[in-house]
Amino acid sequence: MSPFPDRLGIEVIHAGDGRAHVRAAVNDDHLNAHGIAHGGFLFTLADEAFALASNSRGVFAVALSVRMDYFRPVAVGDVLDAEATEEYLGRRVGTYRVEIRRRRELVALFTGTVYRMEPPP
Amino acid sequence: MSPFPDRLGIEVIHAGDGRAHVRAAVNDDHLNAHGIAHGGFLFTLADEAFALASNSRGVFAVALSVRMDYFRPVAVGDVLDAEATEEYLGRRVGTYRVEIRRRRELVALFTGTVYRMEPPP
Amino acid sequence: MSPFPDRLGIEVIHAGDGRAHVRAAVNDDHLNAHGIAHGGFLFTLADEAFALASNSRGVFAVALSVRMDYFRPVAVGDVLDAEATEEYLGRRVGTYRVEIRRRRELVALFTGTVYRMEPPP
Amino acid sequence: MSPFPDRLGIEVIHAGDGRAHVRAAVNDDHLNAHGIAHGGFLFTLADEAFALASNSRGVFAVALSVRMDYFRPVAVGDVLDAEATEEYLGRRVGTYRVEIRRRRELVALFTGTVYRMEPPP
Repeated sequence: MSPFPDRLGIEVIHAGDGRAHVRAAVNDDHLNAHGIAHGGFLFTLADEAFALASNSRGVFAVALSVRMDYFRPVAVGDVLDAEATEEYLGRRVGTYRVEIRRRRELVALFTGTVYRMEPPP
Repeated sequence: MSPFPDRLGIEVIHAGDGRAHVRAAVNDDHLNAHGIAHGGFLFTLADEAFALASNSRGVFAVALSVRMDYFRPVAVGDVLDAEATEEYLGRRVGTYRVEIRRRRELVALFTGTVYRMEPPP
Repeated sequence: MSPFPDRLGIEVIHAGDGRAHVRAAVNDDHLNAHGIAHGGFLFTLADEAFALASNSRGVFAVALSVRMDYFRPVAVGDVLDAEATEEYLGRRVGTYRVEIRRRRELVALFTGTVYRMEPPP
Repeated sequence: MSPFPDRLGIEVIHAGDGRAHVRAAVNDDHLNAHGIAHGGFLFTLADEAFALASNSRGVFAVALSVRMDYFRPVAVGDVLDAEATEEYLGRRVGTYRVEIRRRRELVALFTGTVYRMEPPP
């Protein structure tokens, strides 16, 4: 289990075969100074899907570089789904796309690249 | 005050004139499945410095697109400083750089672009 | 017509309705010091698809921030297709995804955000 | 020598010790459909500085993921300097910052991460 997303109320729906799906409902603890969901909360949702997907391939994967694009503000009570898919899987690196949706609407888009550690000999 | 970074123990050291400095000590609630600081926690630290710096210019600024590069793992007890500086300030957009350091060591680097809302007429 | 992509041999297959498709064959002039296609050449291919797609919406669009992920090396003689699709279209900003493929294989992935200028009054 | 930047008139001022400096004057062949320097031309300038800096460390380095932020339009006749510096150098990865300036003015900012190949045994 991953303590940080767990404390934020993020639930794992699925993880495996280079994919992952996590979900959370936005509450008062997740807000920024403008009263909408904090960028760091939305990012953590995407980042956890990314971590689960990239670590489902049998080797330890660590984030190198990620991008997040924010499209629409998110309010208290909104339920968000983050789904990670694999864009590319190589021997030493992999790249994943994570969509954050509120029902069918895309509210943010994440792209992340991992380094895949060499297994112990 | 910003609820999400507040709940995570992030302290504002300074904000103003396109700059900001925030600080946090990593605790057990901030970890990922590998027992090191979660990428989302590090990101939130940088993102809050970015939000404070970009909103210190008199207009409401919202994040459009950000990048985070992770260099070194961070452990429980580490104290992290995130400092935001302005790379570019235009009429409608601005770009900021945020360095996350553990003492003098750079552990992650953030680059973010905001859209600056038009003031009400 | 756009002089820079034209000089590089980039051909426009389609542009309109937030989408674009361009194509080029890699030749000796496009290489880097290692004898494979230069990152700047691949980027230009994606960037031109991005420019055509984002400027097909009736307002002048300028690039703010872009990301490029490189997956596979590209050699002389390879024919590359870059196809841009719209991830998000707002009033003042838009985000596009561009896939660069060699036949069916994804060799690079581009994500870009534009600022949409206000039309003259 | 690197054929693609060479064909574009990019001159190497310096490369070594994790740094590089390249220069070019913008001409009619470098323009986009709006009559200003094409994003792909500016990117290639930054990317070449990045390649030279990251390959100056004794191992073969290949680009994984890069970001470019565009701040100001560039016109024919403008002379641009791109200077790359090392943000982080690890065993298997490295991150570089490249500033593109017209005299003292920052016109674009590039951040790039490389994978460093293992030397042959």
